[in-house]
Order: sequence, then C-alpha cells, then structure tokens
Amino acid sequence: MNLEIFNQIPLYRFLQYCENAVPESETKTILDCGAGGCRPPLSLFYAYGYKTIGIDLESEQVESANAYGHQNQQSLNIIEGDMTDLKFEDASFDFVYSYNSIFHMKKVQIKKAIQEMKRVLKPGGLMFVNFLSVDDFRCGEGPDLGDHQYEQMDDEPVIHAYFDYDEAEPYFEDMTFVLKERRVIERIYEGERIQQGFIDYILKK
Amino acid sequence: MNLEIFNQIPLYRFLQYCENAVPESETKTILDCGAGGCRPPLSLFYAYGYKTIGIDLESEQVESANAYGHQNQQSLNIIEGDMTDLKFEDASFDFVYSYNSIFHMKKVQIKKAIQEMKRVLKPGGLMFVNFLSVDDFRCGEGPDLGDHQYEQMDDEPVIHAYFDYDEAEPYFEDMTFVLKERRVIERIYEGERIQQGFIDYILKK
Repeated sequence: MNLEIFNQIPLYRFLQYCENAVPESETKTILDCGAGGCRPPLSLFYAYGYKTIGIDLESEQVESANAYGHQNQQSLNIIEGDMTDLKFEDASFDFVYSYNSIFHMKKVQIKKAIQEMKRVLKPGGLMFVNFLSVDDFRCGEGPDLGDHQYEQMDDEPVIHAYFDYDEAEPYFEDMTFVLKERRVIERIYEGERIQQGFIDYILKK
Repeated sequence: MNLEIFNQIPLYRFLQYCENAVPESETKTILDCGAGGCRPPLSLFYAYGYKTIGIDLESEQVESANAYGHQNQQSLNIIEGDMTDLKFEDASFDFVYSYNSIFHMKKVQIKKAIQEMKRVLKPGGLMFVNFLSVDDFRCGEGPDLGDHQYEQMDDEPVIHAYFDYDEAEPYFEDMTFVLKERRVIERIYEGERIQQGFIDYILKK
C-alpha cells in the first residue's frame, strides 16, 4: 500500500466524514474538481476503496496525475474538464470535492462551479470545498480586479479570489451544514515566515 | 494494515514533517504526552514504522490505548506518567508531541510540561503541541481561575486553559519555528452549531 502522506491535510477529515457516511459494502464514487498535479489526493481516496474521477483544466496536470496513479497501480480516472460546466449527470456522485483550486477563478465562475458540484452530487452526499481567505499574505498583491480578486503571477498570471469569513455562506444555503474551518497558517517559505489563510467547508446535499 | 483515519487530523501534517525529517533507514522514536484513550493516534505513527512511547496520567486511559494497540497487533508502549515530570533521559526522542491534552492543566504546569518535552527531544528533533484558543465556545464557562483558565465539567471537573493567538510564543523562543496554525472550527455537536478554537505549533529543537 502507498504510505504517502498527502499535502492536502484537510482532505483526511473529509475522508473520515465520507467513511462514516457510507456502509463499506457499497461502491463509493468521488469526484475531484481540480484533480491534476504530480501528487493527486484522489490517490488517498482510491486507497480507501473509492471509485475516483477527477477533472482538471490543464492537460499537463491531467497527465502528471495519471502518471502518479499508474506508478501506484491506481486507475484514478483523471480527465480534462471545466468545473463550471461538468459533463456528468445530475446526482451521479456520492462525494464531490475541490481542494485549493476553486479560488483560481473569479467569483462569478466560483458560484457556477459550486452550482455544478451540487448538481452532480447525490442527495445525502457530502461536498468539501475550500476558499482563500482575506487573512492570506498575498491578498492585495497584483492587479486589482475588485471584490478581493487579484491577477497574480505564479508560473503564469493566475486569478486569486479571497473571501471574508462569512462570504461563501450564501452558496450553501440549500445544503445541510456539516463543518466550517478557518485556518490561518504561518510557516517558513523560501526563508520567510509567511501567513496563509483558508476557509474550508463540508456540506451535505 | 489498519486503515482507520484518526480524529487528530493535524497529526497527519506532523507525521508528514517527521517523515521528511529522517532518512527511512534510521529508527524513529516518538513520544506522545497524553497518549491514552480508545483510539490512540500513536497507532498512526506505529503504522509508519515509528518506535512509539506514550504517557498518560490515568490508568484507565492507558489500558484503553494499549487494548487498541493489541487489537491491531501494535506495541504502542503506553504507560502511566506525568508530562510535567517526564521519566526519560535528556535528548532521548526524535519526535515529541502532545495533542488536545496540555491545556487540561493550569498555565504554570503547561510551561513545565513544555520544558520537559523540549528536554527529552533530541537536537534537531521536531515537536508538535496544540493549545485551546480564546475563540473556543467554552472559553468563559465554569469557575474562573483567572488568566483564561476555567474549571469545567466534562465527566468530572477538569481545567481548561485558553490562549490568545500569540500567548504561547515565549515558550518556543529557544526553538526554530516551523509552523503555527490557528484553527477555528464550526461543527454540529448534539444538534447545535458550536465553535472550537485551537492554536497548533510545530517546532524544531
């Protein structure tokens, strides 16, 4: 078994909620929106017996994630896709999540993506999504697009949308609240002590 | 292998830092201060190849933790002990942690416990400790012992000490800063939406 600890620590809690939600005998399906990259956290869910599907906008990220899966004898099923326009039927997944991904869009698109995630989730299913918070050290950096949205330079210019603590609440008014976590993390990055800020949600449809 | 996800989610991050700190070939020793209970997180470290030792004040908690270990074919080595007076040599562990435990004492004792944890840690070793924060919904409940310390009723009367965000910083002035996380968690408990607050640290000696 792959003993790697994944960077996306809050997904361990989501996994725990998922494990408690479904009897072991059923097939458990999970969708990751923004699933690409060299160490895809869908691998963790696969190891726990989930049927995984992931989408990512960028083909390189998709390839990199599937390559990791192959190395670990896992069929992660990560394909190209746009989380604001999911090519899946209504109510087709037990679990849906998006980790450190949804905030790379403007807030109008984020709203669409969340509507899509809710649509493809089965009634009673669980959803995890996290947001960058205005506590983050990069909030305010780069060309200002208004409403705490900035175009920032990573490897290429990329949108970062930051949220006030209660700003995302309206997205979830039609769902059952499970958990909300505000995380302010200070750590050393390239020799400097930086502060990151996130707001995580777990919700039930 | 035991596939249980442990409740103590921040320890997954600590485990990740521990894994990155030591070459796989060495014996990795870890001490848990407040290690007792029915699902002891030392089990997670054991599964990753660590030589574990834990202490707990209460014999019932010690028995319960070791029973869990035996069920899972793990020798967790949990014994009775007081974290303000550790019966171990200086510099005897690669890693030391205390999770959701140290704040059940008054702050004078907490200071002693942290001194002890530092003492038994090897130079270069990593330490995790977390504190209750004043954000917690129970801060202010019960007989006031001053300085955000309260005697609260769990199964029996027990001290809870709450910390301001930067209040614990002086404890760690002689250590290398690695990570600090402020967590404010809202979740449903007995039908009510409650707010818990924690401050987690990872430090290097």
